Parts: sequence; structure tokens; C-alpha cells
Amino acid sequence: MTETLFSAMPTVRYGGPDSSDPLEYRFYDADRVVLGRSLREHLRFAVAYWHSLAMNGADPFGAPTLHRPWMNQADPMQGARDKADAAFDLFRVLDVPFYSFHDRDIAPDAGDLRGSLRNFHEMVDYLGRKMESSKTKLLWGTANLFSHPRFMAGAATNPDPDVFAFSAATVKHCMDATKTLGGANYVLWGGREGYETLLNTDLAQELDQLGRFLNLVVEYKHKIGFDGQILIEPKPKEPSAHQYDFDTATVYGFLQRYGLLGEVKLNLEANHALLAGHSFEHEIAMAAGFGILGSLDINRGDPLLGWDTDQFPNSLQDTAMALYHVIRAGGLGQGGCNFDAKIRRQSIDPADLVHAHVGGIDHCARAFLIAAKMIEDGRLEGALKQRYAGWREPGAQAMLNGKATLESIAAEAEERNLAPQPRSGGQERLENLVSRFF
Amino acid sequence: MTETLFSAMPTVRYGGPDSSDPLEYRFYDADRVVLGRSLREHLRFAVAYWHSLAMNGADPFGAPTLHRPWMNQADPMQGARDKADAAFDLFRVLDVPFYSFHDRDIAPDAGDLRGSLRNFHEMVDYLGRKMESSKTKLLWGTANLFSHPRFMAGAATNPDPDVFAFSAATVKHCMDATKTLGGANYVLWGGREGYETLLNTDLAQELDQLGRFLNLVVEYKHKIGFDGQILIEPKPKEPSAHQYDFDTATVYGFLQRYGLLGEVKLNLEANHALLAGHSFEHEIAMAAGFGILGSLDINRGDPLLGWDTDQFPNSLQDTAMALYHVIRAGGLGQGGCNFDAKIRRQSIDPADLVHAHVGGIDHCARAFLIAAKMIEDGRLEGALKQRYAGWREPGAQAMLNGKATLESIAAEAEERNLAPQPRSGGQERLENLVSRFF
Amino acid sequence: MTETLFSAMPTVRYGGPDSSDPLEYRFYDADRVVLGRSLREHLRFAVAYWHSLAMNGADPFGAPTLHRPWMNQADPMQGARDKADAAFDLFRVLDVPFYSFHDRDIAPDAGDLRGSLRNFHEMVDYLGRKMESSKTKLLWGTANLFSHPRFMAGAATNPDPDVFAFSAATVKHCMDATKTLGGANYVLWGGREGYETLLNTDLAQELDQLGRFLNLVVEYKHKIGFDGQILIEPKPKEPSAHQYDFDTATVYGFLQRYGLLGEVKLNLEANHALLAGHSFEHEIAMAAGFGILGSLDINRGDPLLGWDTDQFPNSLQDTAMALYHVIRAGGLGQGGCNFDAKIRRQSIDPADLVHAHVGGIDHCARAFLIAAKMIEDGRLEGALKQRYAGWREPGAQAMLNGKATLESIAAEAEERNLAPQPRSGGQERLENLVSRFF
Amino acid sequence: MTETLFSAMPTVRYGGPDSSDPLEYRFYDADRVVLGRSLREHLRFAVAYWHSLAMNGADPFGAPTLHRPWMNQADPMQGARDKADAAFDLFRVLDVPFYSFHDRDIAPDAGDLRGSLRNFHEMVDYLGRKMESSKTKLLWGTANLFSHPRFMAGAATNPDPDVFAFSAATVKHCMDATKTLGGANYVLWGGREGYETLLNTDLAQELDQLGRFLNLVVEYKHKIGFDGQILIEPKPKEPSAHQYDFDTATVYGFLQRYGLLGEVKLNLEANHALLAGHSFEHEIAMAAGFGILGSLDINRGDPLLGWDTDQFPNSLQDTAMALYHVIRAGGLGQGGCNFDAKIRRQSIDPADLVHAHVGGIDHCARAFLIAAKMIEDGRLEGALKQRYAGWREPGAQAMLNGKATLESIAAEAEERNLAPQPRSGGQERLENLVSRFF
Repeated sequence: MTETLFSAMPTVRYGGPDSSDPLEYRFYDADRVVLGRSLREHLRFAVAYWHSLAMNGADPFGAPTLHRPWMNQADPMQGARDKADAAFDLFRVLDVPFYSFHDRDIAPDAGDLRGSLRNFHEMVDYLGRKMESSKTKLLWGTANLFSHPRFMAGAATNPDPDVFAFSAATVKHCMDATKTLGGANYVLWGGREGYETLLNTDLAQELDQLGRFLNLVVEYKHKIGFDGQILIEPKPKEPSAHQYDFDTATVYGFLQRYGLLGEVKLNLEANHALLAGHSFEHEIAMAAGFGILGSLDINRGDPLLGWDTDQFPNSLQDTAMALYHVIRAGGLGQGGCNFDAKIRRQSIDPADLVHAHVGGIDHCARAFLIAAKMIEDGRLEGALKQRYAGWREPGAQAMLNGKATLESIAAEAEERNLAPQPRSGGQERLENLVSRFF
Repeated sequence: MTETLFSAMPTVRYGGPDSSDPLEYRFYDADRVVLGRSLREHLRFAVAYWHSLAMNGADPFGAPTLHRPWMNQADPMQGARDKADAAFDLFRVLDVPFYSFHDRDIAPDAGDLRGSLRNFHEMVDYLGRKMESSKTKLLWGTANLFSHPRFMAGAATNPDPDVFAFSAATVKHCMDATKTLGGANYVLWGGREGYETLLNTDLAQELDQLGRFLNLVVEYKHKIGFDGQILIEPKPKEPSAHQYDFDTATVYGFLQRYGLLGEVKLNLEANHALLAGHSFEHEIAMAAGFGILGSLDINRGDPLLGWDTDQFPNSLQDTAMALYHVIRAGGLGQGGCNFDAKIRRQSIDPADLVHAHVGGIDHCARAFLIAAKMIEDGRLEGALKQRYAGWREPGAQAMLNGKATLESIAAEAEERNLAPQPRSGGQERLENLVSRFF
Repeated sequence: MTETLFSAMPTVRYGGPDSSDPLEYRFYDADRVVLGRSLREHLRFAVAYWHSLAMNGADPFGAPTLHRPWMNQADPMQGARDKADAAFDLFRVLDVPFYSFHDRDIAPDAGDLRGSLRNFHEMVDYLGRKMESSKTKLLWGTANLFSHPRFMAGAATNPDPDVFAFSAATVKHCMDATKTLGGANYVLWGGREGYETLLNTDLAQELDQLGRFLNLVVEYKHKIGFDGQILIEPKPKEPSAHQYDFDTATVYGFLQRYGLLGEVKLNLEANHALLAGHSFEHEIAMAAGFGILGSLDINRGDPLLGWDTDQFPNSLQDTAMALYHVIRAGGLGQGGCNFDAKIRRQSIDPADLVHAHVGGIDHCARAFLIAAKMIEDGRLEGALKQRYAGWREPGAQAMLNGKATLESIAAEAEERNLAPQPRSGGQERLENLVSRFF
Repeated sequence: MTETLFSAMPTVRYGGPDSSDPLEYRFYDADRVVLGRSLREHLRFAVAYWHSLAMNGADPFGAPTLHRPWMNQADPMQGARDKADAAFDLFRVLDVPFYSFHDRDIAPDAGDLRGSLRNFHEMVDYLGRKMESSKTKLLWGTANLFSHPRFMAGAATNPDPDVFAFSAATVKHCMDATKTLGGANYVLWGGREGYETLLNTDLAQELDQLGRFLNLVVEYKHKIGFDGQILIEPKPKEPSAHQYDFDTATVYGFLQRYGLLGEVKLNLEANHALLAGHSFEHEIAMAAGFGILGSLDINRGDPLLGWDTDQFPNSLQDTAMALYHVIRAGGLGQGGCNFDAKIRRQSIDPADLVHAHVGGIDHCARAFLIAAKMIEDGRLEGALKQRYAGWREPGAQAMLNGKATLESIAAEAEERNLAPQPRSGGQERLENLVSRFF
């Protein structure tokens, strides 16, 4: 194993709130037990190969800025091995329990299917060996079905059935590898599942293709006995002008249409929520309400910009409220908090990557502790219960449970000559109450 | 019957493309037959009481500007009758086949349920008598469950079950009235069905309330034998920070969740599509793909502003493409093109209202004629068919129809060692082709 | 003096961070000295008549919800006196040092100029008497030149010169009153100074009108010896589709064009910054850089919505960074923190208004204390200085001060065969550092 | 000269409105005289090296898709020559009068200043020779000061003065080359002149750097007797989170601040206007009003997406209104219509690039003919004049020209007891009138 960018760095330790060391955790005391479980178990942090190892600082207006030695290897497979070495060094430094990857993050495309699969499996073996001596497990695997030109018009939704077949074969092998590596989930992000213009798009046909594709995946999961969750990651607008998996509500409708409810959950991302016109907590609460909350890509976007900036999270209020809704929903289960977050293009010092993760992990831990306090305190939940108390009365229940009809409700309402008086929503008081936990 | 703002105006006639009279139609030759039906039957234009008769020019920063004599009546019921007289005068001037209303547009609230219903039914009778001597029919009726303070925290989704009951009673009577008046559809717009902050909102509870409410409506429709369509109008963001009926895809998921598919369709609005981050044609194509396209609110928004401007449509390209997808979907059936569009706050001359409608009607007719030409030409449809031709092959069909598995597809893909080559999407050529129809 | 909504409420006191009383300040210890001045002097809080006394809960889709007894008076002047009584009661409860008003907030329009001025001056006298027994002073006065229909096409920028004259006369009297009442500033917000469509707008003509209008104001200020600041409040998009005072940079260009630099500063609002696509701290830093930072409207908007929500501020990070830039710029001087913030439509309990202000005041005080700590700590400023250190070298200075020419710089650069190496911007480290202050 | 992608294609000819050949112009009859000049002279179309020759179809989520042989040359200078050959072939095919380039578009960076300049001048010579046998002239040259990592923190606004010097030297040579090649303008686009976070940015310092930089450029222009225009291209949000040259109004303020008015004009882009929250016609009318309208980047954006999509224009209404304001302002003078527009990532057939340009050119020509008709018709202008007629009266003039004071205006207004009545803005009538020209 070669020296990597991170070999010389010590593991980041918990130093307590008063620590002045920027490379110590002040809040992430992994073994601290809150609400019955350790922070490690609640948060299940994962480093994403994609953003933490595969980004080079390029943007649509500029060339790469980040020095990543593994990208310059003449032999791409040697580069892949160097990258894996660096990755596991980084995992050690951060002491994270999980990581996640796309097939293309860990092994290079070879132009054709067989060569690409060969590269992939060779690197899966390599990762397997790395994991033997590492505490870091696999949160999820996934296939990159969006970067190569063959996917430019979609993977499952491509007008060319050969691309569908290529994609299906790729996913089969990625699922096999995820199972082999003990992955807790398998994720699908439909990067190119969408359209640029309706002029060249048969929307209904493409949705049917996507629905069938996902059913193939679910059937295969059961066939091989993979006990991880299958997760879809909603995102609107980017890279396709319209993406089919727009947001939680859209994917929920899709899952019902294609008979996938109960089989597939969601991997929600803060920045994707923003692009869809929602708050992160909204997407979490919606998914929880529909029973499809699976896992989180924990980052932040810039509400003043119109694309995925994928920044490390640092708005305490936003993250705390998001995690509050996660706790209310019973936690993340097999999911986790994956850092689908990247350092800025100007953050070119290797240490910047470590600072970014340390800040992000500590931020989330702090936000979680705040959310846990809000849960333990109970006043927010109590106010909510109180507001809907009327619905627990028998007459109200009858309206909900199908015993009453529109006619019977109308008759009684007229009989009582209703003139309901509005009641304060108390938003400012509740906001003031929330402020007390920060 | 009193003199109204419009009594003195003659009916607007078709004058042909070369007409220089701003109060003649240049394209809306109602009896012209295209694609097997007259323009009147295809477009089914409706004037909306709400925007055309009930607006006064007020905005969040300013007082009313529009002189509407019926608003100044000391007796609100006399005002309601005057308004109805003016409305039917306007319908006559415009020669429109349909109109639409909210209960509150036609009759004043009385503070309590019984009084409000009494006012309403009195005015329904009045409208019924007006319709006897008018060619204008009712496209749809609906209930305004959002303006009165009692609805400030929702109608069906209110934390107070009495508001639910009040709303249910109101809708029952509105459906009765719509049936009585021969309405072709009944619409529900969830103006306050949403939330301001999750801090005081039980999202899952509220969705269940909304789902039950809509089932009550559907059950009642069958009970009374109303043969119109039940329509939901999707809208995001306004007036609630989050509205439950966000867009087509969201409502589609909702309909499935509450067993309403096949019973409820959508009334789509251009400006609402825009606020949700979609094009109008996207929403139409999605609804068509899901089999829930019902009717249109035909207006335009301002993409530079973040609220419903509800302007009269005038972008020929946007309207033509929207109507192209309507035609592809088989037309609007019992639905129509409702002008949910209002004149600007500065358009204070009574004639401005007529000019606005004449422009809007003519614009839509022209756009429809263009769309029909694109359909008849067939090249756009042909290019689409050609692009997906591969999917009509047996091997491709097997992947879609459930005969192939992920494993079998992968095995064959590996056997063939696929390396699919990308094919041009030809967007610019198609855009150039479209330009030829304008 | 009558009983008001607030008469029975005690004055809100400072109770310290551990206070559990929602109607005590936990952070706003007005006399606490930080950075050489008391919090009262730094923050100069003002209650805005407009949002706190004149709002009724109406929105574009719904009727008023807030019970404000002074709005129901048959005699509008009696209503104005009742409103003033309630206002000064509220000021007493909150113990705020300042308030602010539009002419129309304190006295009703009378339809014509003379009557309106008569109402206004009568109420100015009334306020003067109220102030004699109050600790609350006037932060600024202003004229509402946007609500009445006469202003629908602009005040200073109206195509009708009579509206310009009406507006000029109104502002003259408002300035007189502001001086009489000891106001520290006079504000102009160009609510209708903009356009709906270029089709009916002569943009250059209107800008010239606006420039002349502002010069008239400045000349009059000097004439009467008013020693307050003249402030413009930038805002984009609302209510006009395009507003001329779009943002800081736009107004800065306008001030230069019409010779007003040095005479006019800015009243910046957080929500207006957001609508213009900027952060609040950006607008503050820009204004500070241009030497035109005057005062703040301290509220928050919703980045997911496209209009002025004018909520009470509660994002600690945003407010702290905004105030950090205020402190860097030398503070607010004669300006202050005006609560251009309104309670939500559902916040109908009279106490909600008090809770909202208490939360807002405490929030800002807390954010200021954090900002002050960042200033005292000095590391953020130090990092900034360090980053630009190269520019303090003589060679670099020569490039800036006009001694070098493009040719001489090029010659030396070629001689040195420059190949500058990029240096990390360290954004994540700085963000982590900032997190430590919260 | 080698065979290029375009060698085999014939020159696109004017075929008239009824031409069915997709590679003929239907509206761009270059020699057709309208409003006293030929379309060629009015529109001054330019092909942009940047978008038409240097794009490869990559996006933030995907690899290059476009086959461009010149990008695969082992010797980058041979690639540059091949690219130039292809470029001039494309110019010939399209029969465009102008082209435009960045230094980096025509010659590769060499890592250091001297090598990069050497490459550049060698290619400038090559272009010079190509131009000898071509009818296509240079609309403008510019320097790419944003792609290389050395510019990641700005060019003129970099914290490192060496980058400022490198940039200055680069611009000097680009201006020399532009003069040598007979360029009509020199453009500056501040791609990285902005900031990612205020935490590491001294905004006032950076603005001063930028102001000085631009003065160096202007001084040098006069020194060498370059008689082209110096143009700044405003753009917000991308690639820097905040760009200094946000929009027309911002740059206008900047030009005044640094004494550059009269020396520098604007190159306005439709998509940049959109990102700044403006219409293209707004930016044009603003620049015209300020006397700084220079040239156009004629493309379109997608209002539903938050970044520069740089699509070929195809909204007839938007382009016609933009050109209407150009004509009102006296035309583009030395500027032109530069196609800063790129084909979609899926448009991988070489012919797609030609179709895109043909469509764009024809679209603009058609829009110009419509705009010219609106000008010749005069009704729009007449309505505008009429609306402001009051301002031509002596009393109104006195208010504008400084003869009246606030006091004197107020006195007269009170004397007349003004109560101005609002007048209709007639927006819908004007919109209907505009529709008649399409």
C-alpha cells in the first residue's frame, strides 16, 4: 500500500465542547447514548466515494483544481487501487462507520460491458480486502448510469433498449457486489431518467420503462436474498431539465403506480429538496408519513443558486429540524447520514477535505443532540397533539372512518348551524420555543 | 334588470385574420371545423366569475382600483344579483359557451352555515333563470373554502373538525347546485389545504383528512347521479407555504393512496405549473400519461415573479405546445379552457376586461390552429415514433412485459458484450421544425 | 385614553438566559455594554406601525383575520387615535427605544390632498403628545405613496405629473412632521416606482422623474435643517413587476447618476435582499463598501417562496453574520433595527404580536452578542487580512494606485514569466470557525 | 488544410418563407433593406468560438459527448489549427459576417505566461491568414480569465496580485490581437470576479482592484489607438456564488464609481438577464437609457432552471421585443448579435451544430422583421408618447428641470387641492396590439 494524502493524519477524536483543536470532534462523542442508542448508531455517518474521492474541482467554467494523485495514474486500475487506499485512510482518520460508492467511483469504465464489469469486480475484491482490516462498513452501493455518453438520453428510460439492457446488467452486478460487501442498502439515482424536451420524449413510455426496471431490481433482490433496503433518490431539474424522480411525493406516486410500495424507500437529500421547492424537513416528514423514509444525503444547498451545490451542512436550525423529524419517524433504521457533500473548488489543500468532514460530522451530531432535547422535552409534540385534539372525539372520528356521509355531515352541520371560530396557529410562540433549544 | 358595465357593448364577432377591429376575433371562428370538431367544441372557453367578476384590483400593497358597481351595494344580495346581470352581459358580449364559479363568487357569506347556504341557493336560482335565456352553460362549480377566516388553517385539513364539517356541508350544496345548473364538472382547489409551518402541523393526519374528504365527495357524486367530472386543481406554494396538491405527480400519488383513481381528474393551470417548476405542457403530458387530464385554467404567469400573476395568455409558443399535448391526449372531453386570468391592477377601464378576454380567446384559438397543423402534419409524432422504434422489437418487449429477469437480461447483455452508441436527440432540428408552424 | 389590546400587559424585562418565562428577554439586556456601547444603542430597535399596527391578516386569497379594534371605528380619526394609544402601549410593553411610521399608518386618507394633510397633521400632534410621556422615539417617518389607487402607476414616476406633485406635497409634510417629532431618519420606499410592462413605460423618463424627486427631497432637507438621514429602501419585483430600486448596487448607480451620493443612504431589508437574489450580509457589505449603509429592516423571508413574507427573524446564523458586517462597517449610526416583520395570518391572539416582537428582539440581541464575539476574537478578520497581504506590497500597490500601466505590468509579468499557483480559499475551515461562536 | 466536419457542406442560402429545406434561410435575406439598412448590417451575426467550437457536451454529471476531432490531437497546437480550419468552414457554411473568441478558445494554455502568449500569437497569425480569404470578420476578442485554476479566486479581483498581473498581461496581448485582426469590440466577462463566501472576501478591496483593472484597459485602448468598443458582460450567480457584474444597473454603478462612463459599454446576454431576475428587453432598455448598450449575446435560458443553459433563441415574442428596444435605441452600432449559444448535450451529429445556427439566425431575422414592423407602424410608440403627454406641459417641466422646489410644488398642489384620478395602463390592449405583428 502506498502513502496517501491522508496516511500521516491521526484519527480524529472526541475532545468535548471546549476543545480548541479544529481536528477534534466537539459534539460527536460516538458512544454517547441518547434516546436509547449511541450517536454512532443513530447517525450512521457515511463518507461518499463520489463527492469525497471522485471530485476534482472542475465546474462548467473551469478546469480541475484539486490535487488527487490517483487521478493521474497512467493505469486507471492502479489509480483505482490508489484511490481505495486513500479512501480507507480517510475513513480511518474520520472514524466513520460507513461509506458508499457508485461502480464508476471505484473502478473505471472500459468502453464495453464485459470489460467494465471485470474492472468493477476486481475492485470489489480489493475493497473487500480493505474492509477486513477496517471498521468502516458499506452503507450502500449504486451504479453510475448517468456519466457515460451512452446514458445521455437515459439509462432505464433510454429510447434505445440496448442501453436499458446495459443498465440492467450493470445494476445486477452492483447489487451482487453490494451484497458481497455487506451493504445495508442499494440506491438508485436516476441522473438521466428524465428529459430535455418533450419534442423528442415519449413520457408515458419512459415511465413504463422505469417502472419495469425497478421491478426487475426488486425481483432480483428477493432472488438473491439481499436483505438491504432498495432506495430511490429523488431529485428535480438536474442534470435533465425534467427528472422523473422529482421529489418525495412524485416518487411515492410512481411506486404505487408500479406496485413497488413496501419494496422501495427513499434516500432524501437536503439540496435536492431545495431544488424541488421544499424544505428538507418537509421531504422527511412526507416520506415518514408515507412510510418510505429510508436514508439521508446530508448536505446543504444555496437557496440563492439554482443547482446542486452539495455543500457540507452548517445551518444548525435546518439540520436540527430535519433530524427532529427523523427521530419522530423512528430513526433511520438501516439507512444513515451519507455526506453527499463536496468541498468548494477553492479548497485545494488536502487537509480541507478532512476539515470539511469533521465540521459536517460535528455539526450533525450537535444538531441531533438538539433534536433529541426537543423530543425529550415534549412540548412541541404536546402542542401538536393539543391542536388536533378535536379529531379524537367520536363525532370527528366518524367523519374520518367512513361512517358518516357527505349528506349526514351536512345535515348535522346545518342542524348545529356551524360558524367555527378560527384559532391561533401560534407560529411565533412555537418558533420562540424552538429557539430555546439552540 | 339594471344597466351593467357591458350592456351597451355588441357581441364580439369573427372578422378574419385581416380584421383591424380590436373587438373582433381574428382566429376564433367558433364554427370552424378542425380535426373533426368545431373550435367551440374543442376549446370550450369559460369565463371565470372569480377572476372576471370578483376581482377589484387590490394587491398586498394597495387598495382596489377597479370600478365594479355591484361591489358597492349596501345590500350584498342586491350586489350579487347585479353582478350576475353583469356577468351574463359579459358572456353575451364574448359569446362564450361556458362560465364557472365559486359559491362565494355568486353569493355572500352570511357568517354562519345556514345563512350562507340560503344566500347561495337563492343566487343559484337566479343564475338558473339567467341561463334560460343565455347560450352560456356551466363548465364547473366549486366552493371557496379559503377566503373566510374560518378556513385560515385549512378546510378539509383543519385541526378543528367543525371546519371540516362546515366545508363538507358547503361542498354538498355546491355539488347539488352544480348538478341543478347542468355543470359539466365539479372542481376542488385546496387553497388552504397545506401548512405554514411543520411546527404546528400533523402532516399525515391532514392528508388522511383530505383523502377522506375527497372520498365523501366522490361517494356523494354517485349517490346523486351527478355525471360531471370531479376535478382537483394542483397548485404549490400559495397561499399556504406548502400546499398539499403541489402538482400533477403529487396529486396522482394522493389519488392512488386514497383509492380515488378513476374517480377524479385534474384541472391544470399554466401559472400553477410554473410555480411548481414545470412547464404547462409537462403537466398536461403527465396528466395525460396518468389518464387524469380533466380541464385547463388557461392563463400565464411571469417566470420572473414568484406568485400567481394569473395573466391572460399571450405566448403563442407555450399555448400551442400545451394544446398540442391536449390534442394528442384526445382533447379535453367534458373539460374546457377556463380563463382563470385577471386584468392588471392598472386596467381600470371597463372595456379593458373585454379586450383582455377577446385577446385571450383569440390567442388560444390561434394556438389551437397551430397545434392542429402540427398534428395533421405528423412529422413531430413520426420523429417520436422513430426514436423509440427499438422498443417495438420482441427482445425489447420481453424486457418490458415481465418475461425477462434482471439475470436473463444481464446474461444476454454480457453475451453480446454491449457497448451502445449514443444517438442524437436532434433537439434543435425539432425546434426548427416547430418554428415552421408559427 | 381607552383600554387597548396591550394595556393589561406588563413591560417585558430581562430575565437572563435561563429564564423560562416566554415573555422575558433572555439575551436583550438593554444596558449591557459590548464593544463600548449598550445593546440599546447598538441595535436601536424600532416597532413598525405598518406591520405591527396596520396589518389585518388579509392576503390575496383571504379576508382579514386579526382583531384590531381600531380598524372598526366608524370615525376613522377616532380609529387613528385608538391605534396610536394601542401603539404606545405596545411600545411600553416591549420597552423599545424607537418606532417608525408611514403617514397613512397614523392617519387616514381623505380623498384629496388638503383633507389628507389635515388628518395627518392632527395625528402628528397626537403622536407628539403621546411621545411626551413615552421613552420611545421616532426612528423614521415616511410617506405611503403606493397604497392609494392614485399611485397605481407610480408616485414620482407616474405618467401623470399631478401625481408627482401630490407625492411631492405629501413628502414635504411628512418630512416636516418627522423633523417635528425628532425623527432620526426619513425613508423613501418606492413601492410603485417601477413598471408592470415596458409596453406602457418610458423607463428613461421615469428614472429622470425619480432622480429629480429625490433631489427635491434632499434640497428641502437642507432648507429646513433636518439633521436626520435620508434613506432609500431597495426592493425588487414587488409590487411592481420591475421596481427601480432593485438592490443596493442598483440604487448606488442611481444615486451617482443623479448627484445624490453623500446625501442619501440605504435602509436595507433582509427579505428584499433575498428577493433580489442576495444574502442580507451581501447587501450590508455592499452598502458598507459604498459608504451608504444607513439602517436595517430586520426580518426574514422564505427562500422557497417568491414574495415578501416579512417574518420575524429567527435564523441565528443569518442574523449574526448580517450584524457582524454591520459592526465591521462601524455600526448603524443614526439608523436602527426596524421590525418590518409581521405575524402570520393565523396568529390571531393579541398576545401573538407581543411574543413575536419579544422573540425577534431577543433573537437579534443574541445574534449581536455572537457577532461581537467574532469581532473581539479577531480570527475571521485576521484570516481576511492574511489572504490579501500580497496587496500591501509596493509592487502590488503600484498596480492599484495608477503608477503602473497595462504595458508596464505586462512587461514585468513576462519578464518574471508568471505562473501563479492557486491557494486554498479555506471556506470549510472558516465555516467551522464560525460554528464555534454559536 | 485538412478536411473538417463542415468542409463538405454547402453555404446556406436564402430560400424564402416557403422554402421547405431545413438548411435554407427562410427569413434571413442578408441583403434585404429594412429601416434603411440591410439585415446583415442591422444584426451583425457572430459565431462564438467558445460555444460553437470549444464545447464538448460535458456537464457536471457527465462526460463529453460531442465528436470534435480537433480536441483529440496529441499536439495541442495542431488541434488549434484544425479547430480554426473547422471554424472558418463553419463560418462559410453559415455565411456569417462575424465571429468572436477567447484567447483560450483559439490557443492552448502553456502553464506559464510566456508560453501561453507564444501559443496565442502564433494562432492569431494563423487566424489572420484564414481571414484573408474569408468574408467573416472579428466582432470581438476577449481573454478567458476564468477556466484555469490560477483564476479560481478571481483574475483582477484575486487576493494574489500576481494573478492580477498575469491577467493584465493576458488582456494586453488579447487587445493587441483584437486590434491586429480588426476586431470591432473588446469584451470583458468577469467569470471569476466575484466571491464564494464573504468569510474569505474583502469586497471593497476586490471592487477597487476590478475598477483599477478596467481603467488600465481603457488607458491602454487609447494608447494603442484601438477604435473598437470596450464591453463588459454582466452576469449574476455563475460561476461565482456572487458575481460583481450582476446586471446592467450594477455595472452602470460600477462604471460611474470608477470613472469609466463614456468609455465602456455592455455586452448583454439574454440568459444572464434571466438569471438576474430580469427580462432581456429590460436589460436592453436599461442599458439604452444609460447610454451603455453595446452588443448582444443572443441566446435563451430556461426559466425553470437556475443556470446558464445558453440555448439557441427560439421564442419569437421575446426576441422580437428585445430587438424592438434595440431599434428604439438606435441599433447595435459596432456591436452585433453573437451566438453565445450551444447545442444540447444530446445533439451529437455534426449537422446538429449547423441546424442550430441556421435556426437561430433565421429566428433572429424573423424577430427583427417583426420588430421593424412595430417600429414602422408607430402605434406602440404613439401610445407611449400619449401616456406621458402631461410631462411636456410647462408646469410639469418646471418640476423636472429644477425650477420648482418641494415647497413650491407642495404649495401649488395644496392650492389646487389635488386629487388625481388613476388612468388605465391599457396593458391588455397593448398586448393584443403586439400580437397582431406576429
